[in-house]
Amino acid sequence: MTTAELVQQIKQKKSFLCIGLDADLDKIPEHLLQEEDPIFAFNKAIIDATHKFAVAYKPNTAFYEAYGVKGWLALEKTIRYINEQYPDVFTIADAKRGDIGNTSSRYAKAFFEDLGFDSVTVAPYMGKDSVEPFLAFPNKHTILLALTSNQGALDFQTQTLVNNEELYHKVLKTAVNWKNSQNLMFVVGATKASSFKTIRELVPNHFLLVPGVGAQGGNLKEVCEYGLNNQVGLLVNSSRGIIYASRQTDFAEAAKNKAFELQQQMKVYVDQLLS
Amino acid sequence: MTTAELVQQIKQKKSFLCIGLDADLDKIPEHLLQEEDPIFAFNKAIIDATHKFAVAYKPNTAFYEAYGVKGWLALEKTIRYINEQYPDVFTIADAKRGDIGNTSSRYAKAFFEDLGFDSVTVAPYMGKDSVEPFLAFPNKHTILLALTSNQGALDFQTQTLVNNEELYHKVLKTAVNWKNSQNLMFVVGATKASSFKTIRELVPNHFLLVPGVGAQGGNLKEVCEYGLNNQVGLLVNSSRGIIYASRQTDFAEAAKNKAFELQQQMKVYVDQLLS
Repeated sequence: MTTAELVQQIKQKKSFLCIGLDADLDKIPEHLLQEEDPIFAFNKAIIDATHKFAVAYKPNTAFYEAYGVKGWLALEKTIRYINEQYPDVFTIADAKRGDIGNTSSRYAKAFFEDLGFDSVTVAPYMGKDSVEPFLAFPNKHTILLALTSNQGALDFQTQTLVNNEELYHKVLKTAVNWKNSQNLMFVVGATKASSFKTIRELVPNHFLLVPGVGAQGGNLKEVCEYGLNNQVGLLVNSSRGIIYASRQTDFAEAAKNKAFELQQQMKVYVDQLLS
Repeated sequence: MTTAELVQQIKQKKSFLCIGLDADLDKIPEHLLQEEDPIFAFNKAIIDATHKFAVAYKPNTAFYEAYGVKGWLALEKTIRYINEQYPDVFTIADAKRGDIGNTSSRYAKAFFEDLGFDSVTVAPYMGKDSVEPFLAFPNKHTILLALTSNQGALDFQTQTLVNNEELYHKVLKTAVNWKNSQNLMFVVGATKASSFKTIRELVPNHFLLVPGVGAQGGNLKEVCEYGLNNQVGLLVNSSRGIIYASRQTDFAEAAKNKAFELQQQMKVYVDQLLS
């Protein structure tokens, strides 16, 4: 999917909501456990119920790998279902991969070509030659971790370098000079919305994937105030707050309501930009 | 496996060789492609031929994920085969994972419990709460990326912080204070062997997993000079140089010869330590 197509979808749906599909057999409604593939049944119901209000789905691969081959099959079915039924929706493999060059190429091929994801999250620690193999795929997007929303972000990401910039600033500034950097997006946690101001100065045009609005304490208003650009430029993720809004038989309806609620808040910002 | 058991095995085999099982259908001998599971058939033959000279096997998960469900099955069969046939051998899932806390727990469970690996490689960028879930598993080992052997290591890992230490030094110093840090090992590339001196000052007792001896240009002599500690404390990895030593029907024999050759070099250092 091209960035223009993503922007088009955002304008159409008046939403920049991404829904995290972190399917957990301990949390999905009990009646689904009788299904042949409970995780896929859960994802399918969530996707069918929410796709009008969400522009992106983001399965976190850890939740699938935790179930071994069965989990991997559920992931394959989920991405295939989205691509077949809702081809306009942007898909993110939240895999946080990254390895030396020829190995990163393997991951890129697996997620972009074989599974057919539009994007994959990648960790920056190993530098340029670990990320460029992902960037080489046209119309695929590499979402590089910059500032994450967890406490541990303070351990290294916000450490100050000798030139007085924080490490994650260095990551942003360096990455935009890599080959095919037009295919980059960045993960930026919403826990400290004031950070978005500096981030937008460093990467005015790139999309930012923002976890941590809701469960992790971020605030949509502040994120939008500093994070929006003239193409919207944000994908705001919610996982548990939507997919586990109810754990009864009405789970899909409850997820739909939560997604609608967030879309209604986002609509205000999209309308402002379009007006 | 406990660290003591690993050390015991090293002393017995007089080897600290780790063999990277990066199985690639484009590189394994052609006659194996007729097998039901060519990757497992290849791994099994390599393991059977080399286990006397190697103390650890390290499948890089990218090579398996690249083949989807089939690849995942081959990985499962490989680790099960090692654990059943050669339970004294140390196993490393070279997965370079890392995510927020509850998600890292999923990865840890998948690799340590479900697959039964002794260790997994983890990226440090997301900090303490992304790594401690791995460290929580007793007698399992978390091998944290510190200084990798690729060119991109210079992009961030060796950046200097305000207190004049390099980022990867900060990673080492910080990580040893995390809970259950006795379960830590570190990935340290062999491309700049002089770095080992400082590294050993920072982490005198931890095991170091050293890629890049051979194909990536590292030098065993220099690595040993600075990297060995009184429990050996090194696992030196070779992948392509061993497993693709021949691509004919004699591939297992060729791998055995290469592994033996490296073991003979390592034996000198183990003997020195034991004497």
